[in-house]
Parts: sequence; C-alpha cells; structure tokens
Amino acid sequence: MKQYQRSSVLIIGGAEDKVHGREILQTFWRCAGGNDAIIAIIPSASREPTIIGDRYLSIFRDMGVKDLKVLDVRDRIEGEDKYYQEYVEQCTAVFMTGGDQLRLCGLLADTPLMERIRQRVKLGEITLGGTSAGAAVMGHHMIAGGSSGESPNRALVDMAMGLGFIPEIIVDQHFHNRNRMARLLSALSNHPERIGIGIDEDTCALFTPDDHLEVVGKGTVTIIDAQAMSYTNQGKVSAESPLALHNLRIHILCHGDRYNRKAHQPTAALDN
Amino acid sequence: MKQYQRSSVLIIGGAEDKVHGREILQTFWRCAGGNDAIIAIIPSASREPTIIGDRYLSIFRDMGVKDLKVLDVRDRIEGEDKYYQEYVEQCTAVFMTGGDQLRLCGLLADTPLMERIRQRVKLGEITLGGTSAGAAVMGHHMIAGGSSGESPNRALVDMAMGLGFIPEIIVDQHFHNRNRMARLLSALSNHPERIGIGIDEDTCALFTPDDHLEVVGKGTVTIIDAQAMSYTNQGKVSAESPLALHNLRIHILCHGDRYNRKAHQPTAALDN
Repeated sequence: MKQYQRSSVLIIGGAEDKVHGREILQTFWRCAGGNDAIIAIIPSASREPTIIGDRYLSIFRDMGVKDLKVLDVRDRIEGEDKYYQEYVEQCTAVFMTGGDQLRLCGLLADTPLMERIRQRVKLGEITLGGTSAGAAVMGHHMIAGGSSGESPNRALVDMAMGLGFIPEIIVDQHFHNRNRMARLLSALSNHPERIGIGIDEDTCALFTPDDHLEVVGKGTVTIIDAQAMSYTNQGKVSAESPLALHNLRIHILCHGDRYNRKAHQPTAALDN
Repeated sequence: MKQYQRSSVLIIGGAEDKVHGREILQTFWRCAGGNDAIIAIIPSASREPTIIGDRYLSIFRDMGVKDLKVLDVRDRIEGEDKYYQEYVEQCTAVFMTGGDQLRLCGLLADTPLMERIRQRVKLGEITLGGTSAGAAVMGHHMIAGGSSGESPNRALVDMAMGLGFIPEIIVDQHFHNRNRMARLLSALSNHPERIGIGIDEDTCALFTPDDHLEVVGKGTVTIIDAQAMSYTNQGKVSAESPLALHNLRIHILCHGDRYNRKAHQPTAALDN
C-alpha cells in the first residue's frame, strides 16, 4: 500500500465511497497517521451537522484511530472555544464535510480555531481533508454557486472568499458529474493567475508537500491552466456576455496521474 | 457590413435566430450571393422535412434570392434524382437543416447528389451551411450521440462516419447549452489528430477559404487542440473507465474571434 506523507491536503469532489472500498477516506486516514491518528471532524458546512458528523465519526472509528472528535461549530463564537482549540493542538488531521461552502466560511473564516488549523496545515504539521463544500473552500477565491448549460459568462458563477489553504487554486467539485466546466472557466476568466481544479465525485486531488498533486479515486481531476492565456474579453464585456479565453492548457488526470505545481506539468500514472 | 467569400462553410450550433436579426442566416445568405443566391435546402435530417424545409424556404425567400428549392430526399434512391442533381449544378449554396445526423448520413452519404455537393464545396464553387445535425456531419468522424454528467470516457459518445466536408474536425453542437465538453473530449481521445469544434446555440463557426474560421453569433466556439497531447490512457482502459488526456490546448472564441487552422492559433476580434 502506497505511503503518503502526513502533511497532505486531500481535496475530494464529493460523494466519496463511504461503504465499500472507501479508498479515498482510507487514504485520508493513512495520511492522518492510521491507528495513531487523532482526527477533528468539522461538520459546519452542513445543516445537519450531528448526522454528518456522526457518519464520519463512525467511519474513521471503524478504521481504527487513537482519538477523534466532532468540532460541531454552529456559531462563530464557538470558533473561539478553548476545548476545540486544544483539540486542534493535539490532532494529526482535520476533515471538513460537505454542505454549503458559504455556511462553512461564514461560521469559521478568521476565527482563532480556523486560523490555528491554517497555521498547522501551512507548517506541515497536520493533514487536511475536505469533501464537496469542504473542498470548495480550499482556495483563496471560492466558487460559492453557479449554473450550467450556458456559454461561459461571468454571471454563470458566484464567487466569494475561501479559507485559502492552497491560495493559488480555484476548486470546483462534483465536476463532470454536474457539468461544471463552463462555470470553472468563467471563474478563471477573472483570476487567470490561479489554477482551476475540477474534481469529479468519488475522486480526490491529493496535494503533497513536494508541490505535486496526485489523483486518487474513480473519476478525473481537470486542471485548467490559464498562465499562457493570450487573450480574454473578460474586462470588456457585460456579465452575461460570452467569454473569450484563448490559449488555455487543460489536463484531464486519472487515478495515479500526478501534476507538478511548480513546473505546471502532468505525469502519467505509469511513469510515476 | 462585412463581406465574406462565396465559398465558405458555415457550421451552426443549432437554434439559430430565425425571427429577429437572423444574423447567422443573413451571413449564410450573403455568402450564398445575396439577391443572386440560388439555394438548395436539404431537410433530410428531419422527420418532418416538409415543415422544416418550408421554414427555411420562407426565411431565405424573405431575404431575397434568385431561386431556391427544397431537395426533399426521403429515400437513398432520390440521391440519384436527375432533377435534384441539375439543381445542385446551378446553385450557389446548399443548406442542411437539423434533425438526426445518422438519418442525414444514412440517406445521403455516397449518393451522386452528395458527392457532387462535396466536390463543388471542395472546389470552392459554392457555400455550404449546416445547423445542428447539419453541423454534426461536417467532419470525417461524426458524433452520432452521447451523454453528459460523467467523467470523460469512451462510452459517453457514439461515433460514426460523417460527410467529411472538413475532414480534420470533429463537431459538437448545442455545445455549452447541453454541457457537451466531456463528450467532445471523449470523442477526441480516440482521434487526437483531429480538431474538436464545440459550437453553442445561435453561434456559427464560419470556415473561410483562407484556412481560418471566424465566429459569428451569440455564443462561443470552443476549439480543442490535442496535437500536443503528451499522454492518454485511451487505448489502455475499458470503455467506461475515465480518460486521461494531458496537455490539451483549448480556446473559447467569441463573436469576431478567428482561428488560423494552419498555425493553430486564435486571434481576437479586436485585432482582426
């Protein structure tokens, strides 16, 4: 079984297998330290935090951990809770569930709890995982909502501030499953210096400390790289007008494929 | 008003405006010779060829033409009809309506009528237009059907032989409107030497004799260029497995943007 480092960031496209092979959640568990893991589960994106918190609690408990706890923040004041903060000091990993990414950011952005998590992730001390809404918040810019079935246009996507764990990316989840290519392109038109990461369901973009991402799971991870974009009409047209974007580079990556974030180059699973 | 040459190929993404500005159909009409135009309308993709034939008949008649006729081929034997063939000799343009692309090819592929149209288009003697199903048939390889809402995979798209007017392209129509990025990517994985052209509704990719295409209309034309693709798992995995495609170049083009088919480079509307 492949070994991953303990200071990874796992960005999951939603609807990950929770019943059978649990490949992605197993990978998170291993990055969290396996039987030595101490996992903090943050269910705050969900309007049913008890149910979803308990679900992940029982999944990770089944795998075998040293300790685990749901940090059930339902009010910003709980982001200053001493007990929760102490737990974050001892934990080896934090997992953020699905729900509504605006709710998650609204409750936790800039709280002492989230600031400390961010710091520990940045220092490479803990592993971080997020699925669906918990994935959407990973970048500095966040897709808060949007639509499909239209030519790319700025009105197709609602942007907000994310939690900024990996500032240079803009994440979209349930990606091909919900036909979100046009909305991610629309998001990028405004921020071409960022990298668009579209993650399919039951699929994970695993960011490793050596500046790579690796694909785990059943679907694809789509990378949209606009660094060489030669033209966009983005600033010149109304929000509903179709967007021109010339010279994008796109990579569709499958299980085991890697992407070098510094060199902006993918390598195939077979060559890794 | 911009002048286009009379030997253009207009590939229309379906649902073009037939009532108000009629920008795309007007452009076709001008390429057909305007008031001197002699237009043959082929409604054979449709199961209601009389209704759809009459519709375009009345649209082009309103614009003012020298002559026009519906070549209502409903049986392959009519593809040998002397009267129809004579009309194709005198016409300045041919227009293929929407419907089902397999029906259109089934009725007309390799008939003397279609062979003569192909020859005259190739010689630059006439203008050709096609919308929706009439657009799908333009390449050598044709998307006959497919689905959306999945990671790119070979089973997501049904391929067939097209009429091959512009062999090097694979066309997909109603493109962003019906979320067809994954299916066009899937089609290209098998034919990376072709250029993928995704055309939105009420949008036209106008192929000019100087090896460019230019965008006319309300939406976008998406070019997928896999010439520099560094890796695909296409031949190695089952039809339902997700596809890896590394290093694609993609251009989203808007009204007035052009694409140089030889140089594989777009230029912006403003620079043309």
